[in-house]
Amino acid sequence: MDVPALLLAAGGHQLEAAETLVQAGRFVVILFAARALAELMVRLRLPAILGELVAGVLVGVSGLHLILAPELASELNAFAQGTIAALAHVGPDQVQEIYDHSFSNLQAVGKIGLFSLLFLTGLESELDELMAVGVQAITVALTGVVLPFALGTFGLHALFSVPLLPAIFAGAAMTATSIGITASVLGELKFLRTRDGQTVIGAAVLDDILGIVILAVVVALAGGEGFAIAPILKLIAAAGVFVIVALFLSRTAAPGFDWLLDRLQAPGEVVVAAFLVLSLACFAAQAFGLEAALGAFAGGLILSSSRHRHAIEEAVKPLVALFATVFFVLIGSGLDLAVLNPFDAANHEGLVMAGFLLVAAVISKVAAGWSYLSQEPTNRLAVGLGMLPRGEVGLIFLGLGTQSGVLGPSLEAAILLMVMGTTFLAPVLLRLVLADPGAAAEFAPEAPAP
Amino acid sequence: MDVPALLLAAGGHQLEAAETLVQAGRFVVILFAARALAELMVRLRLPAILGELVAGVLVGVSGLHLILAPELASELNAFAQGTIAALAHVGPDQVQEIYDHSFSNLQAVGKIGLFSLLFLTGLESELDELMAVGVQAITVALTGVVLPFALGTFGLHALFSVPLLPAIFAGAAMTATSIGITASVLGELKFLRTRDGQTVIGAAVLDDILGIVILAVVVALAGGEGFAIAPILKLIAAAGVFVIVALFLSRTAAPGFDWLLDRLQAPGEVVVAAFLVLSLACFAAQAFGLEAALGAFAGGLILSSSRHRHAIEEAVKPLVALFATVFFVLIGSGLDLAVLNPFDAANHEGLVMAGFLLVAAVISKVAAGWSYLSQEPTNRLAVGLGMLPRGEVGLIFLGLGTQSGVLGPSLEAAILLMVMGTTFLAPVLLRLVLADPGAAAEFAPEAPAP
Repeated sequence: MDVPALLLAAGGHQLEAAETLVQAGRFVVILFAARALAELMVRLRLPAILGELVAGVLVGVSGLHLILAPELASELNAFAQGTIAALAHVGPDQVQEIYDHSFSNLQAVGKIGLFSLLFLTGLESELDELMAVGVQAITVALTGVVLPFALGTFGLHALFSVPLLPAIFAGAAMTATSIGITASVLGELKFLRTRDGQTVIGAAVLDDILGIVILAVVVALAGGEGFAIAPILKLIAAAGVFVIVALFLSRTAAPGFDWLLDRLQAPGEVVVAAFLVLSLACFAAQAFGLEAALGAFAGGLILSSSRHRHAIEEAVKPLVALFATVFFVLIGSGLDLAVLNPFDAANHEGLVMAGFLLVAAVISKVAAGWSYLSQEPTNRLAVGLGMLPRGEVGLIFLGLGTQSGVLGPSLEAAILLMVMGTTFLAPVLLRLVLADPGAAAEFAPEAPAP
Repeated sequence: MDVPALLLAAGGHQLEAAETLVQAGRFVVILFAARALAELMVRLRLPAILGELVAGVLVGVSGLHLILAPELASELNAFAQGTIAALAHVGPDQVQEIYDHSFSNLQAVGKIGLFSLLFLTGLESELDELMAVGVQAITVALTGVVLPFALGTFGLHALFSVPLLPAIFAGAAMTATSIGITASVLGELKFLRTRDGQTVIGAAVLDDILGIVILAVVVALAGGEGFAIAPILKLIAAAGVFVIVALFLSRTAAPGFDWLLDRLQAPGEVVVAAFLVLSLACFAAQAFGLEAALGAFAGGLILSSSRHRHAIEEAVKPLVALFATVFFVLIGSGLDLAVLNPFDAANHEGLVMAGFLLVAAVISKVAAGWSYLSQEPTNRLAVGLGMLPRGEVGLIFLGLGTQSGVLGPSLEAAILLMVMGTTFLAPVLLRLVLADPGAAAEFAPEAPAP
């Protein structure tokens, strides 16, 4: 019985009340849990995003059963169900029905958060700084993408007999470095403004671009026609052209955007204009056969040289704070801890796989530090560790992989653990290596402070 | 055939691509049309919200058929449908299916915009200024609520044989004054800081509170058990208690909120904390048997004396600019101009009804100017005209009334025309009456500038 029929059957008002209670209640649960855990993580000097993921686990299918995608076919928390049923004067079955039916709205809101986050990441890309650190960053970024991708994909395929497509997905999820986490930890340790620090950031930006291009190709493959070489080359070419056009537009289109923005007079002009560019770029990427996520990033990149960049950032940040949180909590909520229970022999392979992914993710990025072409004394270990946290972009891979249905539950859990593990280890290890903030500067005393 | 089944039938990737194209495309259409028309209105010195409504009409069921609620059972724009079908390699029928299925996501986003707007309205309420203009504002507000409500309800019921419940709904939609439109026009005419101007704003704030209480009662009635007196009294009592508790909390809870906010360290703390209060207040109102809209307003009222009020406003405004626009465009998109075609005899009663509502809406608010208890020279006409624009709150009534299904299409169109008419007339007439900005001040030369 679908919801419109139910509405007729039971008198619309009670069901509408139940739906409003469900939606408001879900926001309260998500924002409260995410905020509480994020505050805890910040006090432990760990990235806030870890808290949002843990919060998702706590309220999701492995925890309180408050945030529960209908695909999981699991029973809603009985207390919450009963409370809403009593408040809205409907039956508990109807609450479950409404919950499942309206869940896609929550996912849509999370997706707005995801695209806003990617847009913001593109917007904050310092293309000029990237040019300044130039060749060094490129070698670090390329090694830092190729090594984890190869190690992850072929390791999973050869050692664990994972089919090629999910193995490629997992390998791709290991490529991108989280700029936000890296920058905040390096900043705290006074390493950000050194030449090495700038190289890490430059490489992380390149990683993002390469990672999202890989994503576009992989997702298209996941839905497509298998492993014919021609469509893969076509997609890679399309993604390359798309990024080049975006980079070109970021050098040329911003003045036109600014000209237009200066002429808008109705209120809310900054956020509306930015969101129009974002929506158009998502539409264009998808129309091009690529992933909308690439479009969102490209949209930000295009506006990164706008005079109004700061105002756009300020306007987009509240959207990210609210709705990207929804996205991360949703990801955590789907993690089934049962597949990680070490006392169940059936899980052993999955656990070993998770361990392998984590180790491969650490080793391959640290190794990238040694690909750094520098004539000067260089803290290669710190550069490698700076590339470690996968954070939000890895999660985006995970979310899209789950959605397209190519990943099984144990591979999903392994990827999530890899992302959480690297995000946890990066600040801890960097603090050890850079224990004395003064020591870092010695490696590059002539570092410019851009 | 529902969408999950379709997904299996056609290979998920194409359908996902089609859904992304549909969603991104709808955002582009809504934001572009709303912005273009809002800019036009601002240049005609008319409120931007008028542009958003007209934009909705242009892209909706009476126009391009690009934004189209599935309830209208109308065919999507053939060109758009064909373009998306071609880009995503799916059939046009599947595009229509996906469009209808994902429309509730757009409505959910619009609802977030609506609640954010009400929250912002509550947040910007100047309770202290309201206290200062005190008794005068109360008489103006009460007359300005009771007169239009009575005139609208009984006029429709007696003259047009509209059943009591929809008549009450229409009457309720005539009560609230749009603070935003009134304040911006009065400000432009240098009338805002006069004593008369402050009285208008004070009365508009009270109007909002009274209007939203009436809304809570009326919507509950619309879903409920008809016209027994006991539940009505119970609801009015509940709404009264709710507002009193909110006013009490606005005087007492803000320091606690500020204390907590000062201790949050993870980024995005302002908007997350504000949205948590908003979600909790919506949940509480609905749990209390009232309307979530009242909760959203009350949530803003509670935080209106926060030290962080300005930061909260700045964080919530982008949400309003994006998503309340979606809400207004959706309202305009549902207006069926066919029911207003004067050459169709079947429409004559509806047209006369629309004319009646507009005239009643103007006369009853202008009359409120003469209820102003002032010993001093007073521009009663300007005070009455200042109360004229119904704007967003009237539209919220309309949206909820449409949703609960008590309004027929001609009454819906009549209410929308009444809202658009008053919002259009207020600035035009006020500029005529206050043609010489200096003249206004003469009525209250001793006016304090708060």
